[in-house]
Amino acid sequence: MISTANSSMAVYSLIAGILALLFAGALAKYVYSKPRGNKRMQEISDYIHKGAIAFLNEEYKVISIFVVVVVIFLLIVSNYTDLPWETSLAFLLGAFFSAVAGNIGMRIATQANARAAEASKHGIRSGLIVAFSSGAVMGLSVVGLGIVGLSIFVLAYPDRASSILFGFGFGASSIALFARVGGGIYTKSADVGADLVGKVEENIPEDDPRNPAVIADNVGDNVGDVAGMGADLFESYVDSIISAMSLAAIVSYAYSEIYPLLIASLGIFASILAMIFVKGKNVYAAMRNGIFGSSIIFAILAFILTYYLVGKIEPFYAILVGLIDGVIIGLSTEYFTSDQRKPAKKIAEAAQTGAATNILAGMATGMLSTVIPILTTAVAMVMAYEFADFYGVALAAVGMLSTLGISLATDCYGPVADNAAGISEMAELGDEIRKRTESLDAVGNTTAAMGKGFAIGSAAITALALIFTFYEKAKGAVTLNISLTDPYIMAGLFIGGMLPFLFTALTLGAVGRAAEKMVEEVRRQFREYGILEGKGKPDYERCIKIATRGAIREMILPSLLAVVIPIVIGLWKIEALIGLLAGATVTGFLLAIYLANAGGAWDNAKKYIEAGNFGGKGSFAHKAAVVGDTVGDPCKDTSGPSLNILIKLMSIVSLVFLPLFIQFAS
Amino acid sequence: MISTANSSMAVYSLIAGILALLFAGALAKYVYSKPRGNKRMQEISDYIHKGAIAFLNEEYKVISIFVVVVVIFLLIVSNYTDLPWETSLAFLLGAFFSAVAGNIGMRIATQANARAAEASKHGIRSGLIVAFSSGAVMGLSVVGLGIVGLSIFVLAYPDRASSILFGFGFGASSIALFARVGGGIYTKSADVGADLVGKVEENIPEDDPRNPAVIADNVGDNVGDVAGMGADLFESYVDSIISAMSLAAIVSYAYSEIYPLLIASLGIFASILAMIFVKGKNVYAAMRNGIFGSSIIFAILAFILTYYLVGKIEPFYAILVGLIDGVIIGLSTEYFTSDQRKPAKKIAEAAQTGAATNILAGMATGMLSTVIPILTTAVAMVMAYEFADFYGVALAAVGMLSTLGISLATDCYGPVADNAAGISEMAELGDEIRKRTESLDAVGNTTAAMGKGFAIGSAAITALALIFTFYEKAKGAVTLNISLTDPYIMAGLFIGGMLPFLFTALTLGAVGRAAEKMVEEVRRQFREYGILEGKGKPDYERCIKIATRGAIREMILPSLLAVVIPIVIGLWKIEALIGLLAGATVTGFLLAIYLANAGGAWDNAKKYIEAGNFGGKGSFAHKAAVVGDTVGDPCKDTSGPSLNILIKLMSIVSLVFLPLFIQFAS
Repeated sequence: MISTANSSMAVYSLIAGILALLFAGALAKYVYSKPRGNKRMQEISDYIHKGAIAFLNEEYKVISIFVVVVVIFLLIVSNYTDLPWETSLAFLLGAFFSAVAGNIGMRIATQANARAAEASKHGIRSGLIVAFSSGAVMGLSVVGLGIVGLSIFVLAYPDRASSILFGFGFGASSIALFARVGGGIYTKSADVGADLVGKVEENIPEDDPRNPAVIADNVGDNVGDVAGMGADLFESYVDSIISAMSLAAIVSYAYSEIYPLLIASLGIFASILAMIFVKGKNVYAAMRNGIFGSSIIFAILAFILTYYLVGKIEPFYAILVGLIDGVIIGLSTEYFTSDQRKPAKKIAEAAQTGAATNILAGMATGMLSTVIPILTTAVAMVMAYEFADFYGVALAAVGMLSTLGISLATDCYGPVADNAAGISEMAELGDEIRKRTESLDAVGNTTAAMGKGFAIGSAAITALALIFTFYEKAKGAVTLNISLTDPYIMAGLFIGGMLPFLFTALTLGAVGRAAEKMVEEVRRQFREYGILEGKGKPDYERCIKIATRGAIREMILPSLLAVVIPIVIGLWKIEALIGLLAGATVTGFLLAIYLANAGGAWDNAKKYIEAGNFGGKGSFAHKAAVVGDTVGDPCKDTSGPSLNILIKLMSIVSLVFLPLFIQFAS
Repeated sequence: MISTANSSMAVYSLIAGILALLFAGALAKYVYSKPRGNKRMQEISDYIHKGAIAFLNEEYKVISIFVVVVVIFLLIVSNYTDLPWETSLAFLLGAFFSAVAGNIGMRIATQANARAAEASKHGIRSGLIVAFSSGAVMGLSVVGLGIVGLSIFVLAYPDRASSILFGFGFGASSIALFARVGGGIYTKSADVGADLVGKVEENIPEDDPRNPAVIADNVGDNVGDVAGMGADLFESYVDSIISAMSLAAIVSYAYSEIYPLLIASLGIFASILAMIFVKGKNVYAAMRNGIFGSSIIFAILAFILTYYLVGKIEPFYAILVGLIDGVIIGLSTEYFTSDQRKPAKKIAEAAQTGAATNILAGMATGMLSTVIPILTTAVAMVMAYEFADFYGVALAAVGMLSTLGISLATDCYGPVADNAAGISEMAELGDEIRKRTESLDAVGNTTAAMGKGFAIGSAAITALALIFTFYEKAKGAVTLNISLTDPYIMAGLFIGGMLPFLFTALTLGAVGRAAEKMVEEVRRQFREYGILEGKGKPDYERCIKIATRGAIREMILPSLLAVVIPIVIGLWKIEALIGLLAGATVTGFLLAIYLANAGGAWDNAKKYIEAGNFGGKGSFAHKAAVVGDTVGDPCKDTSGPSLNILIKLMSIVSLVFLPLFIQFAS
């Protein structure tokens, strides 16, 4: 319960959110003002844009059904239990805001790709500014919409915002689930389908416009890495703030309920300010300066706010711990996946003795790369707890995500640069431009990998904050024995630990099945239309439809599991559910890092060989590295990221339905 | 504390143990009485035998140093804490007995291979009997030595056997660690080295005597699958009984402390009796009948004993639950890995589109295969707990392992049959014999895969029993808060969960490094000796030395980690250690099943193609499947099995050093 005096301070966060949206609008206007290049470029960009929107529309149909069912279920539950009926309203709004954020991001990204390619004609710096601006539109929309949504509820329901808002988180999670799982399946089935027939069977280059799946592949980059990533982090962002607000009662600081919202507002200011650091010819340094700059500005602002408003400095320390944890995870990811570092080079070296040794080296690297993120997160959690109890852990999550405005911008920049490179190839803009867009793309790969690490880390600490929130809420209503050695807890741990393996098996299998259909279609078009002989034109739209349908169909089963399992277990035994959530978070975190980093390292090992090492393109080592890259693709772009959602979603579902479990238990 | 009247009943278990050893001796005599075949066969068999013994001797040198250091450390600790000094004596004996069991198994296996090949001349049945008899020597030696060792301590120290015996378990674990990790690295570095140069580069068949690494490869089968597997299950066997004995105080049944030993004795009788079922032409059915037969006989005997001795039937139910869990895990493993079932066939099908899709299909299958073992084990644990508290969980482990005498026999039969097939190839015994030994080998692959699943399942439930024992012992001495949501517990869970990933990264990397050295040596011999041109002879011994040295060097770091980490964490915070053990058990169990089953499925997918499907040997699909098989080999034979030891060893180390932690905490 937030006092009215405190809750009125949500006006400030509302203003910060609106400011972020206005700034995003200005940037979008800037991007739209840039020329889209020649007719061919516009044509390709239009294909990608339409394909992306078509996928979103299909996805929305499924999501609408899901949302309606959940709203009805929530209303029924709130009729019979203590669940406030406004939860369903919050759920609707959470889902809607997340969908809007994803939609904005997709639109701007698919509008910016040709413009970034065109701008590269004036130099790499111009290309960077257009691509980064479009990323910033997404980043600021996510934080803006997130904080506006939360502020509205705090202002409207000061007395019970912190319970109702679980519904908002649930709504955000639901969209994230479909965006991540569906988007992940889409992007990889298109990619694998395009590569297996194009690159491997027919020996035509990547992004060759004759390949019927090439547009679907480019659409996939946006669907997975923009919409999926944005929804994922939107969820982490709002969930971390919600859990901090609802754990505020544990500590007795002044303004502790409203503090997380204010801190997040400072993060928005810091992100916007730091965007001026993103310039210069060295693209990677520009990005890094932006992220580090925003972190430093944010830390200073947060210190001042904490010191003067709360009067105690501990919550600031908890936030700082989370912020540093996020940076370390990002750097560790960079080390294990960059083609400039030892691990990826070693994997490339192992490719000289064939695909098998390449695969084994990547697996070992991925597993080894779990050590630092796990250790730092464990230490961060304990430290944050020592500073401010469970509230501190939630604050650490808020701290890690505070500068999301800019870190998401560097993420979403990646697919735009990737598409820009693809368009310069397809529109035959010449070697010079191609090279510039490719160097933008190369940096995009690194920032995307770091972004993935960051997304996983933030998902894990957010999930932890949610589990602690669940425990605090539950123990207020029922007697709980959650001793670790209780066999029910242990059984929950085992089953929870298994879920990420099951989920990964399902999503990997889904990509395989969907890719198979794409392979058949591409083969058919080559055969029947005579595209390679120059007789006919590829039918891009059919491939887009196949990828869309495959993704939509395949996303349903894993998504339902993620929602239904915690409800079933919670109805059976609340203790087992806590065990289940903890087990899923531990192995979900581990598997997600393993899959993401192994995938990233295989990808860059291949790039390292393509740069001329160990025989270069076309060599024996290169062929082996292509196998590693193909294995890694669905690992890092489908299965790994889906686990982020799984662990957060199960926790937030548990929180939403806690009143039902309590009713059932008593 | 066991009353003197009860402890004297250990005489019965001592007799059962001696009986097992006598029966093993008789079988060994029978095997030795069989002819060893022609000169060439004897020569090859001698090479393998000497290579295996050479490895064991090298390994013993390292182990001796380790054992001496540990004994000194234990004596120092017992001087300053409540640790009984006899723990070091028990440690010595546990290590010694485990080493003897491994030694017996290796000797008989390497003596039986040529004899089994020779016997196959008289039909497949004769070959089966020789190979199975040698496996039974190992199986009965393991259970015999295990139970003799335990009974001696119970008779000698009735009042504190259950504490001292943790040392016995620790000794057994230490040998198992080196045998599994070192043996696992040996077998796969030799195998991968032999295959990469022989099969892939030079295109000569498997088991071609011109390949310098071929003998090392055959030695490896024994080192890994006989000595490693035997030591692994010796450890599970004694640990489960020890934990049941020390948890007996929880329940108030008559004879509860001595009951686990008596139950294990019945298992020995059942195993010996059931060995008469192992006959007939259908080798797989023969094995299965033996295992099922022994389970049924054992269940009947256990029921009778429980009913008349204890007077309560609950402990029997707990045992039954464990027995059934083991059978289900075995069947699930068989389903996911057999070349007669859908999963392996699907992986083979995926090989048609290349190595990458083959790898992805195997990964998905391996992950999916975790579901059934995790669910049944979770259910078994809860049920066993409901029947007889933590004591029941330990009894479930005892029940699962009760018929180890025969199940280990079917396991160790595998490498003997494998070697027999190798010898008939190398000694050119002709198509007929080769086919017979190959069909013996094919069944061996299935039983070995099932054995791996069984070993993992038993390791997990044994580790759980040990964790519960640790908790019960610790809470008697210090106040413990092991609430799952305690951040220290949670940090322990995270770090513990990460250890199996780290361990796997290290062992996979070790195989890679050791295999690289082997590849260089085999290439050098081919080049310098002109073996393939018929000019020179291969130098088998150099390859054996390289494999031995590589394995010994590479096993040290992971082994030390497994011992040192629990001690360090325990000295810091006992609660965090409990979290660590639980986390490691969960992800260790999951990863071990995933690695073992993915590896087994890739192997059999390749075999399925080799049987003529999807283009058969030499086809595109076959080449892709070979990649999968090579990736799977170290997964299933090195990293997966090593995890069994990791989780048990860390738990038993924690138990042994608990008095030190308590001293330190207070």
